[in-house]
Amino acid sequence: MAVYASHSAIQILLGAREEGLLTTIFGPPESLRLYSRFPGLVNKALEYSGVDCLSILKDEGHVLIPSGSIVEYVGYDAIVKSGIPYFGLKELIKWESEWDLKLKLLNEAGIPIPKTFKDPSQVDTIVIVKLPGAKGGKDFFISKTPREIEVNLEKLKENGKIKSFKDVCIQEYVVGTTMYAHYFYSPIFDRLEITGFDIRYETNVDGMKRLPPTLTKNIQPSFIVCGNIPVYPREKLLETFIEYGERFVKTTKRLIPPGIIGPFCLECVINEDLEPIVFEFSGRIVAGTNIYMNGSPYLKLYWGTEMSVGRRIAKEIRIAKDTERLTEILT
Amino acid sequence: MAVYASHSAIQILLGAREEGLLTTIFGPPESLRLYSRFPGLVNKALEYSGVDCLSILKDEGHVLIPSGSIVEYVGYDAIVKSGIPYFGLKELIKWESEWDLKLKLLNEAGIPIPKTFKDPSQVDTIVIVKLPGAKGGKDFFISKTPREIEVNLEKLKENGKIKSFKDVCIQEYVVGTTMYAHYFYSPIFDRLEITGFDIRYETNVDGMKRLPPTLTKNIQPSFIVCGNIPVYPREKLLETFIEYGERFVKTTKRLIPPGIIGPFCLECVINEDLEPIVFEFSGRIVAGTNIYMNGSPYLKLYWGTEMSVGRRIAKEIRIAKDTERLTEILT
Amino acid sequence: MAVYASHSAIQILLGAREEGLLTTIFGPPESLRLYSRFPGLVNKALEYSGVDCLSILKDEGHVLIPSGSIVEYVGYDAIVKSGIPYFGLKELIKWESEWDLKLKLLNEAGIPIPKTFKDPSQVDTIVIVKLPGAKGGKDFFISKTPREIEVNLEKLKENGKIKSFKDVCIQEYVVGTTMYAHYFYSPIFDRLEITGFDIRYETNVDGMKRLPPTLTKNIQPSFIVCGNIPVYPREKLLETFIEYGERFVKTTKRLIPPGIIGPFCLECVINEDLEPIVFEFSGRIVAGTNIYMNGSPYLKLYWGTEMSVGRRIAKEIRIAKDTERLTEILT
Repeated sequence: MAVYASHSAIQILLGAREEGLLTTIFGPPESLRLYSRFPGLVNKALEYSGVDCLSILKDEGHVLIPSGSIVEYVGYDAIVKSGIPYFGLKELIKWESEWDLKLKLLNEAGIPIPKTFKDPSQVDTIVIVKLPGAKGGKDFFISKTPREIEVNLEKLKENGKIKSFKDVCIQEYVVGTTMYAHYFYSPIFDRLEITGFDIRYETNVDGMKRLPPTLTKNIQPSFIVCGNIPVYPREKLLETFIEYGERFVKTTKRLIPPGIIGPFCLECVINEDLEPIVFEFSGRIVAGTNIYMNGSPYLKLYWGTEMSVGRRIAKEIRIAKDTERLTEILT
Repeated sequence: MAVYASHSAIQILLGAREEGLLTTIFGPPESLRLYSRFPGLVNKALEYSGVDCLSILKDEGHVLIPSGSIVEYVGYDAIVKSGIPYFGLKELIKWESEWDLKLKLLNEAGIPIPKTFKDPSQVDTIVIVKLPGAKGGKDFFISKTPREIEVNLEKLKENGKIKSFKDVCIQEYVVGTTMYAHYFYSPIFDRLEITGFDIRYETNVDGMKRLPPTLTKNIQPSFIVCGNIPVYPREKLLETFIEYGERFVKTTKRLIPPGIIGPFCLECVINEDLEPIVFEFSGRIVAGTNIYMNGSPYLKLYWGTEMSVGRRIAKEIRIAKDTERLTEILT
Repeated sequence: MAVYASHSAIQILLGAREEGLLTTIFGPPESLRLYSRFPGLVNKALEYSGVDCLSILKDEGHVLIPSGSIVEYVGYDAIVKSGIPYFGLKELIKWESEWDLKLKLLNEAGIPIPKTFKDPSQVDTIVIVKLPGAKGGKDFFISKTPREIEVNLEKLKENGKIKSFKDVCIQEYVVGTTMYAHYFYSPIFDRLEITGFDIRYETNVDGMKRLPPTLTKNIQPSFIVCGNIPVYPREKLLETFIEYGERFVKTTKRLIPPGIIGPFCLECVINEDLEPIVFEFSGRIVAGTNIYMNGSPYLKLYWGTEMSVGRRIAKEIRIAKDTERLTEILT
């Protein structure tokens, strides 16, 4: 297994070790350092230098385990070019890179999503304006004033952060509680497993809320993820979450065959009717699963023993290998 | 053991399995589905159709394990009528159904509670107005204006949500941090065990606080529980919490013999003097214990091994059965 | 091992038992009660009555395990006078008792700290005004108005809570998310281990933020710690945290030889550039580690098995004893 040095690599490496799989970590030297700090965590470290590096990993028989960082720092093109076996649905990266496609997929799955606005002038409620790419919420902003949105977008254009207004997603900001649902779809067992939930801890917004408004009126809230907090939904919401997940799996099978493989996440806000509204998804492991590095309480329900999502990945690969079904979990 | 299909059923079923007890889950078909998703979690599922269903469970030798949902969906009368053995203090349901009795019990126990107001006109501080029943905070509202409270109550009356102003509890809203203390009282060991703590995650209030006040001035905060977040109190508060729990046990023994059995919860807000003020209680397992499905850190202190409250329930029943003391834990 | 009856004593005692070390708990009788509630947790309890008590513990061959409470309730002078072996860097207590020295240590380590203001009149941003001593945030206040700060400080002086304006620390309040990083430095292995992270749960500020500003305008926020919430930082922040910790260890070795021993904490706020700013430190175990009483997920990375910081302390002592290196971990 080859893992990029960031995001959720620790639990993936630990899980691989627990399942007896060999690992190589790759990335820039300054990122590799962390992983050498923990004795025996990784079998080999490789400095990342582009496609060639992926080809070496391929030749050594590695399977690439993607995380959010791999999309950002390695990229779809390099992965395809190298031909390295990919644990997950490679094509999904393209759907995720465009807001239109991303929301279309959720919509086709019959999953409730927030309203989106094509143009700032149409905005008639609180919205969050999101930039493309998974940069952890950087430069996102909220507003309910068309004029303010236009001014902000102009600034982002001037700074080169967006090319045109079409790059951003102007999405209704549903007022409610955020909850990120983590899933694992196993092609080997044809089963969707729920693995856990988290709340994102975002700077500065989660700090600003502790200050009286008189002190914060000149501060703009920002939404940069710095960590994750565990949360456990009401049991009656669990069934809803699982059904959303099943619809998502089914729809990816239909629109992007062979469909999703392994971990994914539906990013929800729970409204006052206790209905989860999905404002985004991630087609691979999310950092929120790091909370359950010592064992997901939900995975125990399927497996009889606590395990992390990292270990669940390694287990799927090991079982697929042992039963000569590796082709079903790689794209 | 018979468990209603909701709330904290997963951990109760898992605990029963770990202690070697047979389980039946019952409820409406759409609720049963969740429990069939986890292999081997439940021995039998039964569609719920009123008292008859409870009688069948009784005939099959089941003990009913109550949760918050059972009070709401099955009800005290059906339980009594069926004669099914009940793990817990059945009579407590009646005390909980009326605000006056509920607060009286806490008061008699010498546990600090917030001020209550008989009439909106007396309100001179921030209050929370609570409706009867454990519907997860639905329609609760906060205010500090007598007039506003009256207007809101009129609306609730018109909507048929309350019959008279007397149905609601107008309670001082103590400004501080909420903390829900989970307990287990064992009649077999005559011991009160502390099992954990949580913070409720409520929509929309816990989402609204992330928005600047300029954007939220037209939004009413609501207090609908959608999940639970783990929290660990300062060690010096632990002793206070345990003493409150002991007073509660003692008072239920005096006023509602034989007194509380099994899990309960004191729902607190910690004020600036680090004093927990108890604004409500639950006479049975609370959903916050789901956080510790993989093991309560406090139960380890009594038992040498981590276990969930679900397992603690099963253990009490198993030990009572093995020592022929079942009558001491059933009502 | 001798432990003062408060703060994080439960996990320290539990850890000692797991490593086979004998323990005595000491403190005022009302504090000792909690520890007798858990069967077999402690070998002996001793009523605390000043230096003599420490001398008895010394004669019985005990090592003193300090917590935040020991600084407050026992004090540096009594510890030195008794001559009891101290697990940790005793001299650090003095550096911590003065704001100037405390921040100097961080500064010398090259760790980013917030701006401090010598005089209220210089304040040109949001600041938090902190009193001396680790009293859990009592009487701390925030402001951005020089005049308001002066008025508040005058009041604190009148109440005898401070002697002069110089006792307080007027520190820039960095708007961002707080995160408390827990470390363990092992002289035996010459290794810094990261053990976990928490967010402090503070009354009334974390309750007040749930109320609409119209209701709270006459309420002053307060910052009294009542509990801790788990949080897991983004993996790329982990390396930054570890590097800060290493600089801290190195600097204590240089300025206060032999340098820090055992657990410590860097108390951070993450700004919008994802840079942790350290506004304070604790030179011993913090209560936030109580969250991981059942096992720190990070300690597993070094030790192959989950363990609490309490157990990590006991393990260091046991290994030092077994290898006759106790002098390296005691001061």
